[in-house]
Amino acid sequence: LNADRPHRIDALEYSRWDRSLFEQWRDGGLTCVHVTVSIWEDARATLDEIGGWNRRLREHADLLRPIDRAADLEAARVEGRTGVVLGFQNCSPFEDDLDLVQIFHQLGVRVAQLSYNNQSLLGGSCYEAADAGLSRFGRRVVAEMNRVGMLVDLSHVGARTCLDAIELSSRPVAVTHANPRSFYDHPRNKTDDVLTALAARGGVIGLAPYPHLTPDDCSLADWCTMAARTAELMGGAEHIGIGSDVSLGLDQADLDWIRMGRWTHEVDYGAGTAQQPGWLEPPEWFRGPADFPGLAGGLSGAGFSDDEVAGIMGGNFDRLFSETFEPVGAAAPALR
Amino acid sequence: LNADRPHRIDALEYSRWDRSLFEQWRDGGLTCVHVTVSIWEDARATLDEIGGWNRRLREHADLLRPIDRAADLEAARVEGRTGVVLGFQNCSPFEDDLDLVQIFHQLGVRVAQLSYNNQSLLGGSCYEAADAGLSRFGRRVVAEMNRVGMLVDLSHVGARTCLDAIELSSRPVAVTHANPRSFYDHPRNKTDDVLTALAARGGVIGLAPYPHLTPDDCSLADWCTMAARTAELMGGAEHIGIGSDVSLGLDQADLDWIRMGRWTHEVDYGAGTAQQPGWLEPPEWFRGPADFPGLAGGLSGAGFSDDEVAGIMGGNFDRLFSETFEPVGAAAPALR
Repeated sequence: LNADRPHRIDALEYSRWDRSLFEQWRDGGLTCVHVTVSIWEDARATLDEIGGWNRRLREHADLLRPIDRAADLEAARVEGRTGVVLGFQNCSPFEDDLDLVQIFHQLGVRVAQLSYNNQSLLGGSCYEAADAGLSRFGRRVVAEMNRVGMLVDLSHVGARTCLDAIELSSRPVAVTHANPRSFYDHPRNKTDDVLTALAARGGVIGLAPYPHLTPDDCSLADWCTMAARTAELMGGAEHIGIGSDVSLGLDQADLDWIRMGRWTHEVDYGAGTAQQPGWLEPPEWFRGPADFPGLAGGLSGAGFSDDEVAGIMGGNFDRLFSETFEPVGAAAPALR
Repeated sequence: LNADRPHRIDALEYSRWDRSLFEQWRDGGLTCVHVTVSIWEDARATLDEIGGWNRRLREHADLLRPIDRAADLEAARVEGRTGVVLGFQNCSPFEDDLDLVQIFHQLGVRVAQLSYNNQSLLGGSCYEAADAGLSRFGRRVVAEMNRVGMLVDLSHVGARTCLDAIELSSRPVAVTHANPRSFYDHPRNKTDDVLTALAARGGVIGLAPYPHLTPDDCSLADWCTMAARTAELMGGAEHIGIGSDVSLGLDQADLDWIRMGRWTHEVDYGAGTAQQPGWLEPPEWFRGPADFPGLAGGLSGAGFSDDEVAGIMGGNFDRLFSETFEPVGAAAPALR
């Protein structure tokens, strides 16, 4: 057992899920990764995705461990395995059915984003021209997520819906993968008011080396300076983590599905543009999960203390996940 | 706590699930009931049924407790609540997808019948003219049920498929609700060869007071004499339990769904006949779950010892459920 192994958590990945990726997680010392199991899938199709993860978790049990509760995060760390948190980047698996929140919690899903690139049944998206805030159904889903122990993710969510959810949620929430709008002006990046509200309620943002969300030619030093400014804005480094949003092994057909699903017959570029329509080359300082350890040196160079670096590298998401993955109340009755 | 409360288990009910029923369970001293959540429903529709049970189990937590594992059976007993085991009377929720066995185990389903009134993707039904035995998919599903901890139920299953499943299953199996064919000649009742094979592998049959499965004007004494003969045939009373198959609060539309689902546009009478097309009056000695205690006196009168009566009233299904509801191996790794 590796009692001293540090928490290293990647708060968002969406890749081709194969053993070579899981070996990169091991090589990067990752103790936990939040993986996306649904983008546009409905409830039935999401069962297929979860079934696939059930098999992967068994077949690669030497490298992986499922994360259902706080104790699993600690177990994965000391066992030298990578804990896998299942999550949604959309609410499509919930359809219009409040019962499905608990159903998917029973199936191991611990994180759900309230909307993806389009307005959802729950609220607005950062790509829509306007955002009416959390819907009537959305308010009930957030309360149900709070009850069962499912972390609210606001990454692609519109600003007004973000603020509504932060205010309504009885438990801290997350932006698993984004940067501040002040660092780089992109719809996916977050405005200062969202970031300060997030921090005021104990939330954490996973900062992203993802090239669509950073300026051109962003260096590790630039990115870490941004992290330091974000920590200052949010009142402390405990509100910062890393959500790489890295996608390895996916092709153009995968990207078309991610961006266009079934909702348009015309090209939509998602986070990209007509000038940059495909997968971008990742920065040389973060080509994949195996490069995770290298971020620590950059963070130290930007002035973070050793404790702060440890928190950003994983301790802060470990705390947030531990606080939000189980039903409310330590001695709560069984969910069912 | 009621350390001395005896196990009283009804191995099959399919009723209108409301509080008045749960109060009858309490009045009958039932420590556990196996309830049907799917007859013809596919995976998606079954999520709705399980969602309904999640809510019922919360709203009536003073009376009910979900049963996921052996320890829950014991807890329900001593707490004075009724444990609820979720089960399928058909394999329709599995569709053609082996992954769905584990998915539904994660959602609390602990029993599944391999076919209902029609041939299924897994095997033959007692109502079909011929039975080709367990299918290729059926063999894999039985093995997967063994692995995850889901009890195989053979109640409506054809005889050859019953024998195949009994032989293939690495864990004891059940007939949750039927009587011997020698007692009353009905397709749903079981032939001697199935009953002796079931017993040889540690299985249990839930004998049914259900009037379609008993002779006209069957008295409690007649039914208990049948139980004694069945125990003799099967080599001991430890292979006998009770599966009332009682249905309370359902109407003709419910019965039409149960019998005809979507598979026929003509009338099918299921266990009934053109002469007896509707719900039959239950026998006066078993009008519902509150009459459960009265069965014990009849069993004593038929010559069973006190220990044998306790086993038939619940101890035998408690043992079988405890043996079959958890993954194989005491120190087995997590399923996922």
